[in-house]
Amino acid sequence: MTALAVNGKRLWSSLMEMAEIGGTAKGGCNRQALTEEDKTGRELFIRWCEEIGCTLRVDQMGNLFLRMAGSDNSLPPVLMGSHLDTQPTGGKFDGVYGVLGGLEVLRTIYDAGITPKHPIEVAVWTNEEGARFSPAMIGSGVWCGEFDLAYGHARTDKQGVSIKQALESIGYLGTEPCQPFPVKAAFELHIEQGPILESIGKPIGVVKGVQGMRWYDLIIDGQPVHAGPTPMEQRRDPFMAQAAIVSELYALAATHSPWARATFGDIKAEPGSRNTVPARLTMAVDLRHPDQNILSEMDTKFREIAKKHCDKFGLTYEIKDEWNSPAVQFNSDCIDAVRDATEAQGYAYEEMFSGAGHDSVYTSRVIPTSMIFIPCEKGISHNEAENATPEDIEAGCNVLLGAVLKMANA
Amino acid sequence: MTALAVNGKRLWSSLMEMAEIGGTAKGGCNRQALTEEDKTGRELFIRWCEEIGCTLRVDQMGNLFLRMAGSDNSLPPVLMGSHLDTQPTGGKFDGVYGVLGGLEVLRTIYDAGITPKHPIEVAVWTNEEGARFSPAMIGSGVWCGEFDLAYGHARTDKQGVSIKQALESIGYLGTEPCQPFPVKAAFELHIEQGPILESIGKPIGVVKGVQGMRWYDLIIDGQPVHAGPTPMEQRRDPFMAQAAIVSELYALAATHSPWARATFGDIKAEPGSRNTVPARLTMAVDLRHPDQNILSEMDTKFREIAKKHCDKFGLTYEIKDEWNSPAVQFNSDCIDAVRDATEAQGYAYEEMFSGAGHDSVYTSRVIPTSMIFIPCEKGISHNEAENATPEDIEAGCNVLLGAVLKMANA
Repeated sequence: MTALAVNGKRLWSSLMEMAEIGGTAKGGCNRQALTEEDKTGRELFIRWCEEIGCTLRVDQMGNLFLRMAGSDNSLPPVLMGSHLDTQPTGGKFDGVYGVLGGLEVLRTIYDAGITPKHPIEVAVWTNEEGARFSPAMIGSGVWCGEFDLAYGHARTDKQGVSIKQALESIGYLGTEPCQPFPVKAAFELHIEQGPILESIGKPIGVVKGVQGMRWYDLIIDGQPVHAGPTPMEQRRDPFMAQAAIVSELYALAATHSPWARATFGDIKAEPGSRNTVPARLTMAVDLRHPDQNILSEMDTKFREIAKKHCDKFGLTYEIKDEWNSPAVQFNSDCIDAVRDATEAQGYAYEEMFSGAGHDSVYTSRVIPTSMIFIPCEKGISHNEAENATPEDIEAGCNVLLGAVLKMANA
Repeated sequence: MTALAVNGKRLWSSLMEMAEIGGTAKGGCNRQALTEEDKTGRELFIRWCEEIGCTLRVDQMGNLFLRMAGSDNSLPPVLMGSHLDTQPTGGKFDGVYGVLGGLEVLRTIYDAGITPKHPIEVAVWTNEEGARFSPAMIGSGVWCGEFDLAYGHARTDKQGVSIKQALESIGYLGTEPCQPFPVKAAFELHIEQGPILESIGKPIGVVKGVQGMRWYDLIIDGQPVHAGPTPMEQRRDPFMAQAAIVSELYALAATHSPWARATFGDIKAEPGSRNTVPARLTMAVDLRHPDQNILSEMDTKFREIAKKHCDKFGLTYEIKDEWNSPAVQFNSDCIDAVRDATEAQGYAYEEMFSGAGHDSVYTSRVIPTSMIFIPCEKGISHNEAENATPEDIEAGCNVLLGAVLKMANA
């Protein structure tokens, strides 16, 4: 089995052909969920799968499952896949690589004339990007039970078209129940969408989970006094606490390096007058860590830090919880299968965590799941400039092949 | 002469009577420049002055000069005064105290039956507040030559009414040239509009000058990356520099305590997305000090601090100079006259600087000028809650009387 290898050129060629559907002038892709372009992309993918004998199921959310039979079809399948929809100014690889990488694995097995014990399926999840319909990952979200079907069907785009209407209009409102079925193991192959692998020069990321994240609004209230007559020591100035809190949160992230993240994406001063101490500062705080215990500790520390500095400067404050997405720990058997396949093929790898959400966050709740990352150029994604090297594209797919075959024959 | 003292009750009563013109339900005053209320206030003030034999001159900007003859009217007058216009939700004391305090000095001299050597005048400067017409201090500004008359006449309010039209409509477009004339000494009596005197429990501020101030926009450019996948050490995050720069500028202000000020009144993050490191932060920076040399040193340090932290975090930046108002040093003879009068009457005093702009900033360019401050409640001004005690009101006016008599008889 270890002698099997994917055809990197064929995979690259398929990626480029798919990228033409919705292709943009700048070399990116605009193939948003359930559009005519998505329909065309789905049809191309299904045709490719059917050419090698796969069968199609479409569920009530338009999720596709392309199945290659195993030697014992009573066994649960091994699942690959990701999504085919893109951002409006998206790239050629985000999601598509996981789907066509799955196809390439099936083609390789087909060409080798072997039949694994378990059936193998490639899933295409509907509306992962959330660009046309909010929320993101709605296809896998309904499938895993995070959302109910009626909610999923009722989501509308900006023109008021619902997901159900869009599914009907492109002919992908399926009849299969959108719910979990037994799966032996699931693997999602994906570009990293971050700069780590490129910066350390390794082609494979063995992804052990997804960062937990907590979003807050930190609101600090002070006293809006005139910038001139009021001595510094008599002020209650929200910036005095803000600067100290930001610095200390960066230090906190450094304490939990390299995986902790502290990000301040937005800030607002009120009344926002140049020569008046702000009455109020509102700052967005985003804390992340892949270890839920450490993330909880960071949450506790954040509250202590905010209290300490606001108290020190005589300021009142409020921490509003905006979102809490717990850390995801992928299945250890799946992680091991990916690591073993990587080592068996001699690729350098890094054990890491995803900083972005993926369909695997939802599938991992109900079926054994893990992910494989490859580098992307400068970490850029959700951008027409998104890029990856043919070598890394091939390497990631070989790892997927190895992990899938191991599980499919176990 | 030192036995002379003003009538504090009469002064308080005049202040309260004037405050009824444009008086607000919350006990403040809305008597904006060149309105019908301003006209009524001017008429009341002129009547009070004429009752004690003063003569009126009105200049081309509607500035009023009420003159009490001296024993040698070929000598330049000693000048008092401030402004009668208020903010839309202003108080009873800002400006008005300096005008009616001048009136009370004249009444006291009149009642005593004495005739100082120099004539004595009370000036009422047009549109000090800048609430109806921008810029502020336009009457004294044109008078001192900062603006030319055509510019002053052409300023319009939000309804498009020009200052010249408004002067004509209330009958105060005078014929006297709006330009400096010889003045022996000028004194402006004013509430502090800050909390210092109240906090140290002293009734008199001997004002030596006005803070210099420099306004900047600090623009820090980083790299807008996703909050999740990008390790902290690979980020170019404007907040990393912002927090450090703010903290260090507070430390710089502390180095030049108690008069240095560092204020950050506004800040903006772009794109302002909660889970994206900002591409750009724009922060307003306001640095002040009454010593021009120290302010220049603070300016230099600010540039060094910004460079140091932006360089450290791989950020590009720009410092845009928005305004540069040099420190004002009042006339030492005038300051001495105020200090001597304060000491002669046994009042506790603090030598200090004004943090806000006043007509005296402009007059001090062309005639010997200084100011006298008294405490105001909680430092609040430009607010209907503006307040001062009758005792402090009387004390400040006695100091004005002493300083004026000294100069008028010198």
